Amino acid sequence: MTAHTNDKQHKHCAGDHAFRRTDSAVSIVHLKRAPFKVTVIGSGNWGTTIAKVIAENTELHSHIFEPEVRMWVFDEKIGDENLTDIINTRHQNVKYLPKIDLPHNLVADPSLLHSIKGADILVFNIPHQFLPNIVKQLQGHVAPHVRAISCLKGFELGSKGVQLLSSYVTDELGIQCGALSGANLAPEVAKEHWSETTVAYQLPKDYQGDGKDIDHKILKLLFHRPYFHVNVIDDVAGISIAGALKNVVALACGFVEGMGWGNNASAAIQRLGLGEIIKFGRMFFPESKVETYYQESAGVADLITTCSGGRNVKVATYMAKTGKSALEAEKELLNGQSAQGIITCREVHEWLQTCELTQEFPLFEAVYQIVYNNVHMEDLPEMIEELDIDDE
Amino acid sequence: MTAHTNDKQHKHCAGDHAFRRTDSAVSIVHLKRAPFKVTVIGSGNWGTTIAKVIAENTELHSHIFEPEVRMWVFDEKIGDENLTDIINTRHQNVKYLPKIDLPHNLVADPSLLHSIKGADILVFNIPHQFLPNIVKQLQGHVAPHVRAISCLKGFELGSKGVQLLSSYVTDELGIQCGALSGANLAPEVAKEHWSETTVAYQLPKDYQGDGKDIDHKILKLLFHRPYFHVNVIDDVAGISIAGALKNVVALACGFVEGMGWGNNASAAIQRLGLGEIIKFGRMFFPESKVETYYQESAGVADLITTCSGGRNVKVATYMAKTGKSALEAEKELLNGQSAQGIITCREVHEWLQTCELTQEFPLFEAVYQIVYNNVHMEDLPEMIEELDIDDE
Repeated sequence: MTAHTNDKQHKHCAGDHAFRRTDSAVSIVHLKRAPFKVTVIGSGNWGTTIAKVIAENTELHSHIFEPEVRMWVFDEKIGDENLTDIINTRHQNVKYLPKIDLPHNLVADPSLLHSIKGADILVFNIPHQFLPNIVKQLQGHVAPHVRAISCLKGFELGSKGVQLLSSYVTDELGIQCGALSGANLAPEVAKEHWSETTVAYQLPKDYQGDGKDIDHKILKLLFHRPYFHVNVIDDVAGISIAGALKNVVALACGFVEGMGWGNNASAAIQRLGLGEIIKFGRMFFPESKVETYYQESAGVADLITTCSGGRNVKVATYMAKTGKSALEAEKELLNGQSAQGIITCREVHEWLQTCELTQEFPLFEAVYQIVYNNVHMEDLPEMIEELDIDDE
Repeated sequence: MTAHTNDKQHKHCAGDHAFRRTDSAVSIVHLKRAPFKVTVIGSGNWGTTIAKVIAENTELHSHIFEPEVRMWVFDEKIGDENLTDIINTRHQNVKYLPKIDLPHNLVADPSLLHSIKGADILVFNIPHQFLPNIVKQLQGHVAPHVRAISCLKGFELGSKGVQLLSSYVTDELGIQCGALSGANLAPEVAKEHWSETTVAYQLPKDYQGDGKDIDHKILKLLFHRPYFHVNVIDDVAGISIAGALKNVVALACGFVEGMGWGNNASAAIQRLGLGEIIKFGRMFFPESKVETYYQESAGVADLITTCSGGRNVKVATYMAKTGKSALEAEKELLNGQSAQGIITCREVHEWLQTCELTQEFPLFEAVYQIVYNNVHMEDLPEMIEELDIDDE
């Protein structure tokens, strides 16, 4: 393994996003060969679940992957014991994924830098808000040939526009980064109930060649299980956009549910939402493919799962039934957690307003107006009606 | 109104499907002008609901439509009274749509031929199996300039291939026929809970011109309500295919639900189902548009509604939980009604087998095998897995 031979070079180049694209940068990357070493960064409910999936596969395909998978754990005391020690001796994450047996080749590691030592593939699976701090700690310690997959859902929306989290990782660490997203409620995957997911990854310019680098085939072997069907595609932007915007649609479904409008209305909201997700994706990431949104697990299927339950639906339903604000509903229902759609619908609104495009996205705009400007949710149908009757 | 001036000519020409396409046929059609007269053929749960929608609109747009709407009712006794008399005096269909007030300009008519007298637009909304008999009675009594919309879901699948019900009406009656389909559970539409639908209609070759004939704008005015949002498109095949095949997907969702596999799995089935619906539509109706399936209410939204409940899900869930056959489950649960997916999945299988294409539709095929050949539903994931791992 040659993962650390370029640390110095990398540290020097950190922040220079183009360096890895140059021929000289490519020339200093040592040729890699399987087996590849994998580290999972994060050990929450979804992080531990994905680490379980991965460790099952590295054991199975030991000629392609090093069987041992490190999982970085933000260590904490459970009674008198460290969570890492519990995971490494009892092989359960008693705090974040209780009652699920973990493979013995999955090793919890409380040191972030130690956990990534020699890793060829980093799988990020931490809460969104911790990403900047984690990435900062990693800067200068990740060789340019390392590849990454982000299991974080969504994107950053600011005044500068839409930034994918995978692009953020690439920009900050100088490594190629793809994404994993899909209709994946973690507890169901952990229990090995059958589901599907989408992995998106583009081969980097310094791709090392078949058997020497990560490609779609390797990623399928890393994530695919009999109970967890994986499709690998190129479209990182498409799956990231869909993963973030579905939460806004789920709020609208929650309003509909809370008002007792029934299944037709909920299906209509999902249809309209899918349309606006596609429009948003195509407008700001024209390279993203329409098929990703309606054919992939990360597209239409994740939308359906999210709209059939989850935090956003719960908060919005409560708002409809009680007349309380989004923030009150969040506070009363979620024990300090947040319903991501509440933040995302504001970010989307602000970005669309900057672009003078709010009218093009009547559903997203309606959700924003209901959540932030006390617009009556009874007006939802009217707000999203396409007015093309001109007979009067 | 000139609707009946051509009856004789028409009778003579009945069965000659091409006649209305010829210039001489066009020349004998009298020019029509608004207001158009509308008849609804059928008065079940969905038929009465659509008649209510239409009658509200004809009253509102009386410069475009004759306000009075006739609804053909297969008359029956309710106690001592005729159902038609009850509808015309109490303005409720107490048998098939109880407790819903109907507009007074909706007139029940027990005579099929009398009900269509002078009609410019026929809206078919009867159970699928009654269509041939109704159409036979109408033959020779419908002028060629009359236009039709079929609210029946689905198509006929036989050894000859796939025939749309709208094409059947056109072939048998010599009139242009479109379709209405969408995420429309009738009781919710009747209660004026907000929903959406799709109307599909192609202008005929003998189209009489703006204001003299039915077009997309007229159809929108006929069906659109503040609580019932209508989109009018050309793609009759697309919405008909989606309307029929969704029932097969709903069976698979029922299996998943009955086995307790959860939301991820149900969403995965719907995603796969949408993909196979699109593939089927594109293969046998290449003129149908992909967008219809993922953008229209009759496509993805109807799929979602149907998979979240209804007869097919119910029957399949019961099969999974009890181990009983589809026919036993139907018998025990549906009081003589049928779960359409059970018939459709066999028809689809037989048609695909004729074409040697069963392998291309693993989900449809899996449903058929489970329903008819006692294949274990636990094998579903394996049966629909795309096997592209070739590392061993």
